[in-house]
Amino acid sequence: MSRVYNFSAGPAVLPVEVLESAAEEMLDYKGTGMSVMEMSHRSQAYIDIIRTAEKDLRELMNIPDNYRVLFLQGGTSQQFAAIPMNLMRNRVADYIVTGLWSKKAAKEAEKYGTVNRIASSEDKNFSYIPDCSDLPVSDDADYVYICENNTIYGTKFKALPNTKGRLLVADVSSCFLSEPVDVSRYGIIYGGVQKNIGPAGVVIVIIREDLITEDVLPGTPAMLTYKIHADADSMYNTPPSYGIYICGKVFKWLKELGGLEVMKKRNQEKAEILYDFLDNSKLFKGTVEVKDRSLMNVPFVTGDSGLDAKFVKEAKAAGFENLKGHRTVGGMRASIYNAMPIEGVKALTAFMKKFEEENL
Amino acid sequence: MSRVYNFSAGPAVLPVEVLESAAEEMLDYKGTGMSVMEMSHRSQAYIDIIRTAEKDLRELMNIPDNYRVLFLQGGTSQQFAAIPMNLMRNRVADYIVTGLWSKKAAKEAEKYGTVNRIASSEDKNFSYIPDCSDLPVSDDADYVYICENNTIYGTKFKALPNTKGRLLVADVSSCFLSEPVDVSRYGIIYGGVQKNIGPAGVVIVIIREDLITEDVLPGTPAMLTYKIHADADSMYNTPPSYGIYICGKVFKWLKELGGLEVMKKRNQEKAEILYDFLDNSKLFKGTVEVKDRSLMNVPFVTGDSGLDAKFVKEAKAAGFENLKGHRTVGGMRASIYNAMPIEGVKALTAFMKKFEEENL
Repeated sequence: MSRVYNFSAGPAVLPVEVLESAAEEMLDYKGTGMSVMEMSHRSQAYIDIIRTAEKDLRELMNIPDNYRVLFLQGGTSQQFAAIPMNLMRNRVADYIVTGLWSKKAAKEAEKYGTVNRIASSEDKNFSYIPDCSDLPVSDDADYVYICENNTIYGTKFKALPNTKGRLLVADVSSCFLSEPVDVSRYGIIYGGVQKNIGPAGVVIVIIREDLITEDVLPGTPAMLTYKIHADADSMYNTPPSYGIYICGKVFKWLKELGGLEVMKKRNQEKAEILYDFLDNSKLFKGTVEVKDRSLMNVPFVTGDSGLDAKFVKEAKAAGFENLKGHRTVGGMRASIYNAMPIEGVKALTAFMKKFEEENL
Repeated sequence: MSRVYNFSAGPAVLPVEVLESAAEEMLDYKGTGMSVMEMSHRSQAYIDIIRTAEKDLRELMNIPDNYRVLFLQGGTSQQFAAIPMNLMRNRVADYIVTGLWSKKAAKEAEKYGTVNRIASSEDKNFSYIPDCSDLPVSDDADYVYICENNTIYGTKFKALPNTKGRLLVADVSSCFLSEPVDVSRYGIIYGGVQKNIGPAGVVIVIIREDLITEDVLPGTPAMLTYKIHADADSMYNTPPSYGIYICGKVFKWLKELGGLEVMKKRNQEKAEILYDFLDNSKLFKGTVEVKDRSLMNVPFVTGDSGLDAKFVKEAKAAGFENLKGHRTVGGMRASIYNAMPIEGVKALTAFMKKFEEENL
């Protein structure tokens, strides 16, 4: 068995300790005589798993008591509908469009009300985050929506937008648990787990309690109604139980490493190695504005698509997987989530240096 | 490590060979150097996994070419909304109510149109399947809905209802792949996989191609629109990739055992052991009409709730897990899905016999 360095944008690398422990427990979870996959979600063993996962997540993110944590299905794409269906009391929402995913979210929300795109960075292929300190926020906007870290483009909001008193809703899929956040600044902070936390098929929605009401839009499916999930403690129907179990293991791993302050330092250190290399390279360069650079997703190009392809191919042969950039940006992208060890980033930059010497 | 006999109604027992193989591949799937959990769903390795799973399922169920197979999220509860949102062109549907789940499905559908409950067995706590040979099917019904095997009550439709030319939609969660079916008789045949196929978080929808259209109800979320998933080959967003991988392993296991004809024989043999015992027992008795008995879920009682509780407790201590019946039926329930070995059923009946001798 040999492991590669996996720079996939998601599903993505998981801590090897988590995988080892999952493999070990596959046929017999802690003396229960069964796999977590085989466990009734109503059994005490499983209830302990999901409640411990929630408790650890609350601790890690310092989630205030007036916020609920929901473990749901359907990914962010499903939340693109659930958010307006649950929050659009005035049938108006403001979207800040900084990439493919916020664009998709805005489009889906148009099914349910008026969507104002109050800022966008599409003019420069989403390579920056617009100034959001004084935007024309609608007086009657039910919420202001952002995608806080843009996986494809490698940008991140370094400051939250000034929502002028309106509710902030943020998709944090690709920066989830990468650094501390102040949950109290959000109405909803949510994300798919398949980038920085666990296997695809779980989305975690952290929502302020007063936003959970029966007053949803007509025709809202039960499965998209937050109140139904909150009232049932994420057990309205069978939850994606094995995925939640893996997330719980990752929460324990993060706690053992020292929590989100420590992760932030590690992530800064890793990203700096790569960005420093890019800033000094004669062959490679980053594609986004320096001030808006993500700690998680680092896109870069040589400027020559033939050379980009050669790099991706040779990198793969050398054990660096999934470095091809998204088709809308081209070039390369290294996703360096929590579980990517610093050795992986060092090895990658060493490989890039060698490639540069051979191809300049 | 010691495995118990797990009679859970779902999530439920999986083949030990499947779990062993998943454990083995956890850190390195076939030389890729990563877990399937860590794999980009756009990678060739993962595309091979999901397409092979579909191919094997098509073979097992003999799915006609004019049917699509969709791997989705949200369980049957989400389909309770998706089905009317996609199919209710006349805004009318007929529901046959044979348990909690068809009752819930009917209630959810009422959000979208007129729901006629054309038959029900609620008068006798769902302990039988009504005669469905000549029901008052609505002329303008967009479909007739059934739950084909009722997990909680232990009943199964032995003949499909006469829908008088209207479309049949069936939830087969708890009898999925337990015996051969004629897919061509259904408009949609679907189910959650967490009972007879794999881990919770995947629902498989097999739908006739001509029913997949853009003509859905206004406000239908993208994630509940069959056309969007069909056009994207179940990859509109990140699918529950690890769960689908486990399902694929179960499909291979079923093929190796000889397919659904063989499974039907095995399941009949297992169920007969238990039903024969119940029919001859002086202490235990089955709770449903003999003609409607499920091969998968076998509820039984002693008639004394104190004795029932004693039985469940002693059975658990002897390594028979999850025998407590659903609160709406009481007593006990043994779910004996595909992956429950015949030895488990024999051991259970031997234990019941001993308990009977000790407590009569």
